[in-house]
Amino acid sequence: METNLDRIIKEIELFSVFNSTPGKGVTRFSYSDADKEARKYLVQQFESLDLDLSIDAVGNMRAKRKGTDENAPIVMTGSHIDTVLYGGKFDGVVGVVGALEVVRVLNENNIPTKHPVEVVIFVEEEGSNFMSTMAGSKTMIGQYGPEELKNIVNDKDVSMYELAESSGFSPDTASDFVINPGEIKAMIELHIEQAAVLDAEKIPTGIVNAIAGIKTYTIEIEGVSNHAGATPMHLRNNPMSAAAEIISQVDGIVIQKANTTTVGTVGKIICEPNVANIIPGKVMFTLDVRDVDPQGIKFTVAEFEELLDSAVRKHGVKKRMTLVAEAAPIKLADEIIQIIEEEARLRGIDYKLMNSGAVHDSSMLVDITSVGMIFVPSVNGRSHVQYEKTEFEDIKQGCDLLLGAVYKLAS
Amino acid sequence: METNLDRIIKEIELFSVFNSTPGKGVTRFSYSDADKEARKYLVQQFESLDLDLSIDAVGNMRAKRKGTDENAPIVMTGSHIDTVLYGGKFDGVVGVVGALEVVRVLNENNIPTKHPVEVVIFVEEEGSNFMSTMAGSKTMIGQYGPEELKNIVNDKDVSMYELAESSGFSPDTASDFVINPGEIKAMIELHIEQAAVLDAEKIPTGIVNAIAGIKTYTIEIEGVSNHAGATPMHLRNNPMSAAAEIISQVDGIVIQKANTTTVGTVGKIICEPNVANIIPGKVMFTLDVRDVDPQGIKFTVAEFEELLDSAVRKHGVKKRMTLVAEAAPIKLADEIIQIIEEEARLRGIDYKLMNSGAVHDSSMLVDITSVGMIFVPSVNGRSHVQYEKTEFEDIKQGCDLLLGAVYKLAS
Repeated sequence: METNLDRIIKEIELFSVFNSTPGKGVTRFSYSDADKEARKYLVQQFESLDLDLSIDAVGNMRAKRKGTDENAPIVMTGSHIDTVLYGGKFDGVVGVVGALEVVRVLNENNIPTKHPVEVVIFVEEEGSNFMSTMAGSKTMIGQYGPEELKNIVNDKDVSMYELAESSGFSPDTASDFVINPGEIKAMIELHIEQAAVLDAEKIPTGIVNAIAGIKTYTIEIEGVSNHAGATPMHLRNNPMSAAAEIISQVDGIVIQKANTTTVGTVGKIICEPNVANIIPGKVMFTLDVRDVDPQGIKFTVAEFEELLDSAVRKHGVKKRMTLVAEAAPIKLADEIIQIIEEEARLRGIDYKLMNSGAVHDSSMLVDITSVGMIFVPSVNGRSHVQYEKTEFEDIKQGCDLLLGAVYKLAS
Repeated sequence: METNLDRIIKEIELFSVFNSTPGKGVTRFSYSDADKEARKYLVQQFESLDLDLSIDAVGNMRAKRKGTDENAPIVMTGSHIDTVLYGGKFDGVVGVVGALEVVRVLNENNIPTKHPVEVVIFVEEEGSNFMSTMAGSKTMIGQYGPEELKNIVNDKDVSMYELAESSGFSPDTASDFVINPGEIKAMIELHIEQAAVLDAEKIPTGIVNAIAGIKTYTIEIEGVSNHAGATPMHLRNNPMSAAAEIISQVDGIVIQKANTTTVGTVGKIICEPNVANIIPGKVMFTLDVRDVDPQGIKFTVAEFEELLDSAVRKHGVKKRMTLVAEAAPIKLADEIIQIIEEEARLRGIDYKLMNSGAVHDSSMLVDITSVGMIFVPSVNGRSHVQYEKTEFEDIKQGCDLLLGAVYKLAS
């Protein structure tokens, strides 16, 4: 029993057409027109595969293939269809296409399973709209309710609550759709690695042992805006100088002083008024720190805060550092890891037991079920960019592992 | 013979109402609706003062009070009415109101002058639209013609040529309006200091000896965009790290190694795609360097380029550094300085002979006429911000100096 390479290729290419920025990678924010098109296609697939579809209060989709035992807990698989701005066509989509393939193969071989098999599609994994990642899966486990959804807002000050509501969902009913403990037997997500480890070692699949935790901060530095030509250097309180001094030291802290598994990134910076001949009045930037070891994150943030304090004093500016997103490092379920490993050995698929630097929706489910993840290589490790690429043959091997593991868990 | 404080206050307050961003300082870009309102008011004033108005190919205004000798060259005074984003109500406007006051006082006292006295209003001094300062005065002296006007464009890729044309001007006729050598006897501009020197020393007026030269660059750094969580530190080519490393050293170069008169500023930064969980692919920033001594600029830029090269090598990124604006340091006319000094002594007005860190429209006219400038203090040296302030009593003293000097030159 194996998945179909042609179908996988066609479906991944098809998803890349549901795109708000043709020619500049794939951009498909949750609740956008491109997202609506992709969801319409998914509904058609669920119908043709005879799945029972349930859509929750923010748009997360669960499409169930009946099991022979109606009371048996569900084996769930899937991923997200939203992307970052100018992203690639594999991130998220690979796990969605893999889940659809699993059901297709079971259906076309008329194979019943004791446990229901469910395809899950999460909204807003990337945080592209609201700078808050995995908002869909957090809603599904009850971590986000109407109040939290009102508090996460996009650049236009529109909340996820409002955007979900204006897209036809009913965010007030979020609690009606929360997954109950015991409802799900296992969750397995197939995903691209988004790093260069598998590609560098030429291994087609990875089985994830642990997922890095993350802390994301915004740092606002406020100084005194003034004329760039007429203000002598000693009379300046320049927030750009302070910000640059701090940002320039992030790599050093992480590389020389934290763990080899730690990463730290300043991905966003906003300067006001942002005009060449005006000393800025305010500079805002983000800090994203991740590690499978919580000590790596803790240490990096502490060192950063110390440097921030010293730069702020030196430049006579004010600072505000705010934690905007957080996820603890996560150990995945050993019993699922074993099942995937056995399946890989049986099928002769080479694999590597590894950690994940990126966080995923399935990580949100570890408190209510057993979670496993399968990785396929990212060419040159590139992801979240239009050049993101995974060889279709590798995706097929990942899909086959997923099929085997889901079938074994659902039997 | 003196200017009228009440009229000065009222007219400055009135100009601050011609504003695109009420509540956030004064924003009046050339060719904006706020600019059109201000120009309409000026035309009314010129008519009521019986001045002959000529408007050139990009909107610069020249309003002439006849002299008794029709062939005598003109004594010109004025400034600009455009502002930076979220600017103050004094920058530019003080010199415009001062010029109007000069004519009003001459008119109400029925005082003829041999030489015509002309009020000049320059467009686009700040470069707020096109990042190219003094585009109006450069057009008036023939440095910018239709081709140059087509090449300077705003953020929406609209050129000054197009914007002037859609505002009812005829940029193709620019050469018809160029000032001829010999046409102007002298140009005097009254302006706020935009620095803290006069305010700190509690001196109400400054007479400008020299104006700092300026070089403005854009620096683009291109790296490799990728997932912020999954890309190990040693596999990154991060343009933000390189940019921060360079920007953080600008203050140090200027303060420790250049002249005490040198200033250097990074006022603008743009990061792509500018998302917290993505390693940036590209970072663009500006460098603005000024000094009355050209060696200070030359040295600072050379040191900067050396650091840029080393940061680019270290981070494995690419760079492009482009000169986008340039003005040489300028010595103002000694004969005008003497006339203003005499006038100050006669009127008992305290003054300081000083340099200017900011460039002004009148600096553009030094090759075709004798140029002088009078400064009035900026409280706490703040300018280009909504908190920009000059005491009206100081402005009045500056207007009186201007009146006296213009009258003496025009007699």
